[in-house]
Amino acid sequence: MHKVRFVVKGIRNLEFIARDQENLLEAARRAGIMIDSPCSGNVSCGKCKVKITEGQVKTTESRYVSVEEAAQGIVLSCNSSIIEDIEVEVPDIASSFVNEMQITDLSVNENKNITYVRKKLIGQGMTNASRLWSEVIQLPPPTLEDSISDEDRLRLYFKVHLGYKNISICLDVIRKLPDALRAKDFQIEVIYLKRGDEAEILDIKPANEEKTVLYGIALDIGTTSVSACLVDMNTNEIVTKSSLGNAQVKYGADVINRIVYSQKPGGLENLRRAIVDETINTLIEKIALNMSISTEDIYEVCAAGNTTMNHLLLGINPDYLRREPFIPVINNIPEMKCSEIGIKINPEGKIYLAPSVASYVGGDITAGVFAVPTWIRDDYTMLVDLGTNGEIVFGNKDFLMTCACSAGPAFEGGEISCGTRAVPGAIEEVFINDGDYRPFYNTIGHTIPIGICGSGIIDLICEMKRTGMIDGKGRMDRNLNNPRVRFDEYGIGQYYLYSKELDNASKDIYITEIDIDSFIKAKGAVFSAIYILMESLEMPIDVLQNIYVAGGIGTNLVIENAIALGMLPDIPVEKYYYIGNSSMQGCYLALTLSEGKDKIKEISKNMTYMELSVHPKYMDEFIAACFIPHTNLDLFPSLKKK
Amino acid sequence: MHKVRFVVKGIRNLEFIARDQENLLEAARRAGIMIDSPCSGNVSCGKCKVKITEGQVKTTESRYVSVEEAAQGIVLSCNSSIIEDIEVEVPDIASSFVNEMQITDLSVNENKNITYVRKKLIGQGMTNASRLWSEVIQLPPPTLEDSISDEDRLRLYFKVHLGYKNISICLDVIRKLPDALRAKDFQIEVIYLKRGDEAEILDIKPANEEKTVLYGIALDIGTTSVSACLVDMNTNEIVTKSSLGNAQVKYGADVINRIVYSQKPGGLENLRRAIVDETINTLIEKIALNMSISTEDIYEVCAAGNTTMNHLLLGINPDYLRREPFIPVINNIPEMKCSEIGIKINPEGKIYLAPSVASYVGGDITAGVFAVPTWIRDDYTMLVDLGTNGEIVFGNKDFLMTCACSAGPAFEGGEISCGTRAVPGAIEEVFINDGDYRPFYNTIGHTIPIGICGSGIIDLICEMKRTGMIDGKGRMDRNLNNPRVRFDEYGIGQYYLYSKELDNASKDIYITEIDIDSFIKAKGAVFSAIYILMESLEMPIDVLQNIYVAGGIGTNLVIENAIALGMLPDIPVEKYYYIGNSSMQGCYLALTLSEGKDKIKEISKNMTYMELSVHPKYMDEFIAACFIPHTNLDLFPSLKKK
Repeated sequence: MHKVRFVVKGIRNLEFIARDQENLLEAARRAGIMIDSPCSGNVSCGKCKVKITEGQVKTTESRYVSVEEAAQGIVLSCNSSIIEDIEVEVPDIASSFVNEMQITDLSVNENKNITYVRKKLIGQGMTNASRLWSEVIQLPPPTLEDSISDEDRLRLYFKVHLGYKNISICLDVIRKLPDALRAKDFQIEVIYLKRGDEAEILDIKPANEEKTVLYGIALDIGTTSVSACLVDMNTNEIVTKSSLGNAQVKYGADVINRIVYSQKPGGLENLRRAIVDETINTLIEKIALNMSISTEDIYEVCAAGNTTMNHLLLGINPDYLRREPFIPVINNIPEMKCSEIGIKINPEGKIYLAPSVASYVGGDITAGVFAVPTWIRDDYTMLVDLGTNGEIVFGNKDFLMTCACSAGPAFEGGEISCGTRAVPGAIEEVFINDGDYRPFYNTIGHTIPIGICGSGIIDLICEMKRTGMIDGKGRMDRNLNNPRVRFDEYGIGQYYLYSKELDNASKDIYITEIDIDSFIKAKGAVFSAIYILMESLEMPIDVLQNIYVAGGIGTNLVIENAIALGMLPDIPVEKYYYIGNSSMQGCYLALTLSEGKDKIKEISKNMTYMELSVHPKYMDEFIAACFIPHTNLDLFPSLKKK
Repeated sequence: MHKVRFVVKGIRNLEFIARDQENLLEAARRAGIMIDSPCSGNVSCGKCKVKITEGQVKTTESRYVSVEEAAQGIVLSCNSSIIEDIEVEVPDIASSFVNEMQITDLSVNENKNITYVRKKLIGQGMTNASRLWSEVIQLPPPTLEDSISDEDRLRLYFKVHLGYKNISICLDVIRKLPDALRAKDFQIEVIYLKRGDEAEILDIKPANEEKTVLYGIALDIGTTSVSACLVDMNTNEIVTKSSLGNAQVKYGADVINRIVYSQKPGGLENLRRAIVDETINTLIEKIALNMSISTEDIYEVCAAGNTTMNHLLLGINPDYLRREPFIPVINNIPEMKCSEIGIKINPEGKIYLAPSVASYVGGDITAGVFAVPTWIRDDYTMLVDLGTNGEIVFGNKDFLMTCACSAGPAFEGGEISCGTRAVPGAIEEVFINDGDYRPFYNTIGHTIPIGICGSGIIDLICEMKRTGMIDGKGRMDRNLNNPRVRFDEYGIGQYYLYSKELDNASKDIYITEIDIDSFIKAKGAVFSAIYILMESLEMPIDVLQNIYVAGGIGTNLVIENAIALGMLPDIPVEKYYYIGNSSMQGCYLALTLSEGKDKIKEISKNMTYMELSVHPKYMDEFIAACFIPHTNLDLFPSLKKK
């Protein structure tokens, strides 16, 4: 056993007893110290660097740690084992991670979409109200002649005066009933869910001067981050929005790595706790604290996550999702009490999870389709959701086809040397000067750059291609006299956007040929998925009346650049809408329209899933698409003209 | 603060820090030491005697402690306060209490009743099977072409192959599903509840050589004791029976004292824990251990208790039950998961509680009526349940009238100097010699007598009246030369059944004039309730075709004696049936007949409750009935003749 002292700079120190030869990343996880490790400890991302400040670890060389860094004691924690007492300096990713991320959810553009869709759905006959109601009622106090039980008295009122046929009241409410009734002489406030002629009573209080303000939460459970909107259920107004990194990140950046981790002893429970306690509950508490409301006043959560997230949230073994024939344990999750799965709102509060369609088409997509809404249109539209997974839905009111591809975390800045999530300081827009290859860029929040996010990477690679710095394979031109390009000891090219040497910067921000290759694979996966889907239906691309692009790639995504890279189909730019977080929009709509939740279920049942991973042509198409813009330029007629 | 050392003879010692001036009974309760205290600390029963063996307490004289006892350091713990460090010797009631009590439940007579009623109910169209089923099924393993979720696959099988319309599967079963399916190549055993065309799946396992034996429990939750039958749900056979004292006894013998205690801080939770953890779970564990089965294999509990027991079991404030206008919080308790209320059987196992009708007519009575069964007969019958409360149900298939009276614990040996519950050693039958007033008696188990139980008290008083030892008011004849009668310093007469002096006994067993008075009040309460009920319907007693006497009064109840005392109506003895625990019989029948539970609910809805405590004539009738046999002998024509 060895003593390991973790020093999270300026935040906290922690002493931990590790086993001899224990992997340093594993030990950190056991100690609850968060180290960024998108590849989940496979020595393939280089993000889990730490600095050994006392003692030594056993480590091996890797291309992610420079000689200079190694001399300072910097190692990859996933690549090091503990052989004696050590002190380890850990970068404070935990607190930046817990910090608010850029809220792309329901920004101005998105609100416009919501308002438009909401109107349309109400036009289609949906009720302009949520299921959550509150009523102040006066019951007749009991007498010797009228001595029915308190519960029957309440039930009778709901039947006779409010017209409900079935009334359910759970044990916790029954426990409150006798004293609540007698506090204000049988005048009470009842909070309940309306479901047709059924009423489910969630809470009961002695009547007050003012009615309780009831809240609901629309929750988008992403692989990388989790966002929430607090909604005033009386007015349907969004009161506030907030988001937080998904704390499962410490166990792997993408769903596959997390599924692998879930198979280790205690792994599934760690993942469940990470999403429920460390992420969702922390986020809800933060919102409640900021708005000075009680979490007891939140009665409903309407949530969407991909199929893996749903499994992990519920503590269900996700292993068969990643094994052929890729079978989810459950797609349609029944509505539950939040308390049943450990989410802390009102103890009787409900959680609705948008249903999945398949292992890789989850509730985020069915909720997203609800918000587009492809499913009520005559003409053909497509939804492309660019997350860690890419999902595509195509169709109209008569049919919906869907498929998914593994894009990897590149669109969200993952597995890119200087990639970052869309947080303040992320480079989100890039231009390159023609003559001298000098970069110009904007960062989120207009602060000092800390890395490059999805939309920034698209711009950057597009500009590098345009200025001739790279070829169609993403290889840098070795003959250019470009002061911002360097080649490392392995011969890998790096282009510096921000440099210690040239810009007197405090850190280097660059993109490598390996990064560009990662990105090309990601965009190739998305484009070939779209292509195969349309081809299998024998439909040309130009039947598409609209393409809705969703995801946390960044609000400043330039569609022209995405087309120029061969990532999205070559149809007129004005047919594209970047709608941001469509899943969150679907959750909000389902929360505030009585029939919304059933409608999403209906949509999910009408969606036909196509499994790409076993499609005979997918691999060929993928390889053809791993080129900028594509090996078959006929697919991009607008680029040909230029 | 003072140190109190409790010595439970031969069982255990415990040191406890008590507050200065703290009541000794309260301190014992806080320390978890069980002291019998039927009157709940009101200095009115004399049962909470303890012996101070070191130090002194502050106590006051009482008629329950003789001068001789006081000299030995014996005090009433409810009447003593702690003023210095003490050692207290506590009688071991806890372990005799935890010991098995006489099992009157479902003895030979009762089995006869069950068999008869069961046949009758099946003749009426009920299904000869419980709702609990197990099925071994082979699902088709998934393929790329057939990639529906595990849950949909199971659901589809139940729809298509078993014909169910609605199938519900809870989260815990879903969590087991993926691995259970794949352990035996999609061959599984499914345990579920059938409710018409609905199936509720409770458990799932990889298929085994042998099917799981499924168990259910019929549970009678009495104020004084709790009894359980373990039932093999495949064969409907009673595998074993057992009972245990209700651990709430330490907080008061009757429901009123417990309701009073429930209003103290922490009181309700203490009562809830006492019944759930200390009684029901202990009893179930004991049964499982004895039969070498796992509590996981018990999937259903069908229980009946009075209205107060139901409230306390669920942790619902019972205070309004005892306050005019006597309102229960809930009568019809929805079926719940046992785990929801802390009862430990299979985590998905269900509990059904027979519904109450009013504050003092509970589920024990509705279940009892189901087992009689008055409700399917054309002629008039009556059910008289003699517990701590006396409940009466009268009617036929067209109507059911019910009322309740507070009989006090006398029928079960409570508040009687040498009274005892029906445990081994209890005197259950008594005869008195005409000439010399010598007593003859039988004890349960034919062992050395320890006290007198209900049926013994009835015999004893009846014999004392017959031999002229007492008059109609229960007063002992002062002029008899009776060596077994003594009068104490207050002039209160005592008749010794078993005496240290006369019989060289190790303890005295006697009955006092105060005890006889208590009993007369109890029998007066029951008889006047029967009288008022019949009178309010303007029906003479002789319309009664049968009277079923139920309760734990003792299997050897002599009906003639009960009539002779004026406790039960004077109709021919052959019209009486002593059926013992009717509530338990109702639970067993409801457990093993699919429609039973709904039928009890229906019965409860058809029962009309009459509140006696506010009836204008009840008090007069009660006073008239507080005489042996009655002040109006016209009501007992058969006694007149003698």
